[in-house]
Amino acid sequence: MFYQHVVQCLENRGVKIEEIARLVYELQAPYISELEMEECIESVQSVLKKREVQHAIITGISLDQLAEQRLLPEPLQTIMEVDEPLYGVDEILTLSIIHVYGSIGLTSFGYLDKDKQGILRKLNNHDKQIHVFLDDLVAGVAAAASARIAHDYPDVERYFTDRARDQQGSFMN
Amino acid sequence: MFYQHVVQCLENRGVKIEEIARLVYELQAPYISELEMEECIESVQSVLKKREVQHAIITGISLDQLAEQRLLPEPLQTIMEVDEPLYGVDEILTLSIIHVYGSIGLTSFGYLDKDKQGILRKLNNHDKQIHVFLDDLVAGVAAAASARIAHDYPDVERYFTDRARDQQGSFMN
Amino acid sequence: MFYQHVVQCLENRGVKIEEIARLVYELQAPYISELEMEECIESVQSVLKKREVQHAIITGISLDQLAEQRLLPEPLQTIMEVDEPLYGVDEILTLSIIHVYGSIGLTSFGYLDKDKQGILRKLNNHDKQIHVFLDDLVAGVAAAASARIAHDYPDVERYFTDRARDQQGSFMN
Amino acid sequence: MFYQHVVQCLENRGVKIEEIARLVYELQAPYISELEMEECIESVQSVLKKREVQHAIITGISLDQLAEQRLLPEPLQTIMEVDEPLYGVDEILTLSIIHVYGSIGLTSFGYLDKDKQGILRKLNNHDKQIHVFLDDLVAGVAAAASARIAHDYPDVERYFTDRARDQQGSFMN
Ligand SMILES: [Ca+2]
Ligand SMILES: [Ca+2]
Ligand SMILES: [Ca+2]
Ligand SMILES: [Ca+2]
Repeated sequence: MFYQHVVQCLENRGVKIEEIARLVYELQAPYISELEMEECIESVQSVLKKREVQHAIITGISLDQLAEQRLLPEPLQTIMEVDEPLYGVDEILTLSIIHVYGSIGLTSFGYLDKDKQGILRKLNNHDKQIHVFLDDLVAGVAAAASARIAHDYPDVERYFTDRARDQQGSFMN
Repeated sequence: MFYQHVVQCLENRGVKIEEIARLVYELQAPYISELEMEECIESVQSVLKKREVQHAIITGISLDQLAEQRLLPEPLQTIMEVDEPLYGVDEILTLSIIHVYGSIGLTSFGYLDKDKQGILRKLNNHDKQIHVFLDDLVAGVAAAASARIAHDYPDVERYFTDRARDQQGSFMN
Repeated sequence: MFYQHVVQCLENRGVKIEEIARLVYELQAPYISELEMEECIESVQSVLKKREVQHAIITGISLDQLAEQRLLPEPLQTIMEVDEPLYGVDEILTLSIIHVYGSIGLTSFGYLDKDKQGILRKLNNHDKQIHVFLDDLVAGVAAAASARIAHDYPDVERYFTDRARDQQGSFMN
Repeated sequence: MFYQHVVQCLENRGVKIEEIARLVYELQAPYISELEMEECIESVQSVLKKREVQHAIITGISLDQLAEQRLLPEPLQTIMEVDEPLYGVDEILTLSIIHVYGSIGLTSFGYLDKDKQGILRKLNNHDKQIHVFLDDLVAGVAAAASARIAHDYPDVERYFTDRARDQQGSFMN
């Protein structure tokens, strides 16, 4: 398992866990009044402990770094340098992160990626470094961590369970 | 092929092709100054001609309708009635639409789904009808049609091609 | 959470947890000599406790049942009755199950689906019932449970970790 | 567009279009008696003309080559050298190829990947070269090309259309 390594990699690339957690907080705070940053940090850490997530991050950051060092074969080197808008491998890799906590993270990902706030804005404006993969990976981790928190707040589900039980007996468990 | 049927289905559920094309226009106009509604309409039509897209729409709208008629077995009936936020099958089905024109549509989808403008806002506020699937399907079609247009405007790519050619000869075709 | 409900649903449709576990055993036994059925059963149960998986199964089985009762709107009713080979919503829904334990389950799914052994063969030969979704869902659960077991046997990883440590110090954790 | 470049890349890595087409033929011949190799070759070429597919192949082959040259940062270098079975980025990238012709290619992919015949067996036994990505990419292209052919043989659909029309009038087009 590469948890420490991945955290270190992200830091080396300018991304702190707290900054990802901040994105999670912004996404979920409107829906969960008692939410605290502590919990968002924990959720990001959980996501980063998943092997699937680690493999995606390790691969994506490697490609960003190799592009900076101009070690990629062409035409990949140029695709990465110009951040070709039709290149979708970064989104594909990110999907595998999002799926770890189910499909409900999809919406948050797209929103973060379009809205570019916080750390995502910072990554985007860095013009000496190449962040083709990093920005999407970070948005993906935030989306997954956000989905994980949503799964932990079963308010809607509780209401739903009660109502369903009233209507037709208890088929749930 | 079910093209006419799908167009009819969408209209019956309150969605005109022009309204989906409007979402496409809003997404792409900032990047493509010469874009016209005509082209967005055509792009939506192309997306709706794909079998994968037709199957997703036919299935999703059927589920919405069956929920309105209270014909779904429990607990699915209740999940649909309360539009359970943790239910992600609507997003999953939509992914299969988006993938038809590549992963770059992912971002647009999330943005549309979060931002809820135009027809999406209308679908969301309709409280007599059940639109658990329809809103996502419409956003998915708009995202795919938007990706299709992006693929047709190779400006960035042209720049990119020229530049790459200068650097190392012509490996492209 | 719908765990008991989902187990019951599967049994009502002719699928016992042990039969899914049998598929898992066949998939993994060649690689893990000490594997026991007990563990495969446990792994299937874990997969069935995931909300994403429950939602997919609940939706897919509902569609199979509504098709048997001839309650689906056309053309979906006919698509389901003839088990249209170009209809891919069943595969799409199954993907959301497989992704729960990472992409390595993909291969197993395709193999099971093509090879049709055990319970899958039984489901396939049942001509009074409609199993458009059920066969794929069961193969998906078996593939995910199989991936989950692979993640628990870190033999390869252990070898890998040792070797990597020898080479460049400990970046892993 | 990188069509010629991608064909060249594949050849440099030991994969001829005819060999991929052979896999397609084996997959589809049992279902389509009049199928000829010519058509399978054409279908593979069509798949390789899709930008999404080109990006996936360019990225995957680059990673294989960089691993052979020992240029990848650790731990990715070691993951690639030992072909870590829990590393799923190769499958993820392949998914983006398969999705280009719809989800029905999923089954074929898994089958090819498990069954390892023809060119896939050859790639697997090459122990001097690293083919972590290449084997999956080739299976993905074959699966997509195979799905594309299935979409072109609407026998089942024709039967289905006739039958549905008899039953409830013409909603199809
Ligand atoms: Ca990116
Ligand atoms: Ca929805
Ligand atoms: Ca099926
Ligand atoms: Ca591989």
